Amino acid sequence: MTTDQLKSKIRNVPDFPIKGIMFRDITTLVKDPAAFKYVIDTLTERYRDRKIDQIIGIESRGFIFGGALAHRLGCGFIPARKPGKLPAETIEESYELEYGRTSLQLHIDSIKKGDRIVIIDDLLATGGTIRATANMVERLGGEILEIAVVVELTFLKGREKLKNYNIYSMVEYDSE
Amino acid sequence: MTTDQLKSKIRNVPDFPIKGIMFRDITTLVKDPAAFKYVIDTLTERYRDRKIDQIIGIESRGFIFGGALAHRLGCGFIPARKPGKLPAETIEESYELEYGRTSLQLHIDSIKKGDRIVIIDDLLATGGTIRATANMVERLGGEILEIAVVVELTFLKGREKLKNYNIYSMVEYDSE
Repeated sequence: MTTDQLKSKIRNVPDFPIKGIMFRDITTLVKDPAAFKYVIDTLTERYRDRKIDQIIGIESRGFIFGGALAHRLGCGFIPARKPGKLPAETIEESYELEYGRTSLQLHIDSIKKGDRIVIIDDLLATGGTIRATANMVERLGGEILEIAVVVELTFLKGREKLKNYNIYSMVEYDSE
Repeated sequence: MTTDQLKSKIRNVPDFPIKGIMFRDITTLVKDPAAFKYVIDTLTERYRDRKIDQIIGIESRGFIFGGALAHRLGCGFIPARKPGKLPAETIEESYELEYGRTSLQLHIDSIKKGDRIVIIDDLLATGGTIRATANMVERLGGEILEIAVVVELTFLKGREKLKNYNIYSMVEYDSE
């Protein structure tokens, strides 16, 4: 499968969640067995020899890719969740969204100092969500080897918020 | 790994999300590589020869297990999501929670008539969430081969809401 073929599996939904936003819908990708397999195989190949301890997936779509990737790598999976969802003691970071403001949490005991971490989400937009997650990982002493996303909206310049990190994206959009 | 060993990986958090509820926390299971692998290997073995077309995972913890299982089976993954999250045309079913009331949605074009489906979630409690998901799958013409959960709270009698379906649970709790 080529990048263009992978991109063709992503559905473009205009004016979602608000007018003027072209939503890149990965549900059409993950329901396609070959496309989903290609994404997970590619990420597995990329991280196989990197001694990853934990994959951190960002709620909710990051759980789909992150769960599969952690399983393939034989490592653990940690969810970064919206407030009120994680039942034990948490740390929290707030951030601005493309449309709104919210925060994310991690369980305080989820990461051990020195754990080798890959953060995964479906989408890199303005970078706020991923930056908040990366901040929490650093606070807990984790080592972020890379941030992986399926889709990057390059025109929103999310990488500028994430200059200290390696970022790997599979499909890019350079305009709405 | 035995069922008791698997159960020991689930954290018990009293009084979450409200007083009197003992929350069964699977984040400690999925961050344990051996326990997470055991769950996905067991489910893969169970469904390997059943010609599954799609795994439906229920938001959000069902995405972690469902993404991994769909990948292992080489089939597609479909998210059942809370209202306002799926960008294209949806159908919806509402249901009562253990604490509250809400609804779930599926994309109308996610399932083809006759698709062979396994529904997966982390937890079977009162059965409302899973029943709503099963209703949507039926409305779209899918064939539900089985409903799989990691944890079943048998004392909440969720199976009584799901009498027409095969249900497979890996760990049971018969009281709070």
